[in-house]
Amino acid sequence: MTTTLYHAAGSPNARRVRIFIAEKGLHVPLVPVDLGSKEQFSDAYKTINPRSMVPTLVLADGTSIAEVPAIWRYLEEAHPEHPLLGSTPTEKALIAMWERRVELDGFAAVMEAVRNAVPGLAGRALAGPHFYEQIPDLAARSRLRVVNFYADLNQRLQTVPFVAGEHFSAADITALATLDFAKGALKMAIAEDQTALQAWYDTLAARPSASA
Amino acid sequence: MTTTLYHAAGSPNARRVRIFIAEKGLHVPLVPVDLGSKEQFSDAYKTINPRSMVPTLVLADGTSIAEVPAIWRYLEEAHPEHPLLGSTPTEKALIAMWERRVELDGFAAVMEAVRNAVPGLAGRALAGPHFYEQIPDLAARSRLRVVNFYADLNQRLQTVPFVAGEHFSAADITALATLDFAKGALKMAIAEDQTALQAWYDTLAARPSASA
Repeated sequence: MTTTLYHAAGSPNARRVRIFIAEKGLHVPLVPVDLGSKEQFSDAYKTINPRSMVPTLVLADGTSIAEVPAIWRYLEEAHPEHPLLGSTPTEKALIAMWERRVELDGFAAVMEAVRNAVPGLAGRALAGPHFYEQIPDLAARSRLRVVNFYADLNQRLQTVPFVAGEHFSAADITALATLDFAKGALKMAIAEDQTALQAWYDTLAARPSASA
Repeated sequence: MTTTLYHAAGSPNARRVRIFIAEKGLHVPLVPVDLGSKEQFSDAYKTINPRSMVPTLVLADGTSIAEVPAIWRYLEEAHPEHPLLGSTPTEKALIAMWERRVELDGFAAVMEAVRNAVPGLAGRALAGPHFYEQIPDLAARSRLRVVNFYADLNQRLQTVPFVAGEHFSAADITALATLDFAKGALKMAIAEDQTALQAWYDTLAARPSASA
């Protein structure tokens, strides 16, 4: 057996891992999980991930690793070349800080706006093993958070070329996945005057990993 | 200058860092930030953390590191003795996974339930630089999530002595902070039949670090 990534082509969280793998130049076989037919709730997939979420990295010894930052951590520790999580203690911490801010303020806000509004996700307002009702007021508040996130990120990118500073890192991956997710699912785009954000986006979208 | 932690005695996030420091046997001077008088919004504190949140670790060279997992990452990388984030790639990933599940399903749910309900936090439903209105329905849903979190954690602790497996780790720190936060702010306690959770809690609460 070899290390394998269980993923879904349309899952923004799975894309965060696919881009990371591409940027590191690794080859990890992909196994698709069909969210459309609710395969994530099947007994077979629950053996791999009892929480019914994608992506999951399954190691050669059968160990399952779920949660994007945890999968990244494994890949970076097992394959230190082309670091995306930093090299020094300070760099590692600052990338962790910026990536987390992008995830909590941006990615999670888009996810919340989608899951609390899309009719097909009624009763599934949060991913995972439990079922929660949608809250329309929350979807509206989440969209406001996404608007603020774009403005904050544009301001940040007026001072540095990449989200965590001078170098491309995992924080850029989450930011790219957030913008494409917001554009696709919420029809929210970069404003015309957010020129720093647009320039950064164009640079990121031109990297080969963006199609992963 | 020496590395310093800006914190607040009553902040559950600051406590996560204080316990981590105690468990590693480090000595990091603490500087209190008075949340009661809204010192986190002062210009002086915003220079340290523009997002007006505690805790923030300020290094000897002036670098500010915010966000609990990022602060932990710095401390662990700079002081590898007594690892709390794992030793091997697989251990590091599994601790990251379990700690994150506890944070997102437990700690964040308690925070959401508190911030969307407490009268003193009206207009401050999310920490950070932006102001958002409370959503009462969300507070109710969050409490339900906390109930599910307790049940899931009890089930997990029926099979392993610590949250991430055989050893004490950062995942236990977040879980302990979550339970004490829920007890203090939401009056939610461990149910009588959650004996595995209660036994784990008693073990954790008896460690000297619990008073940090």
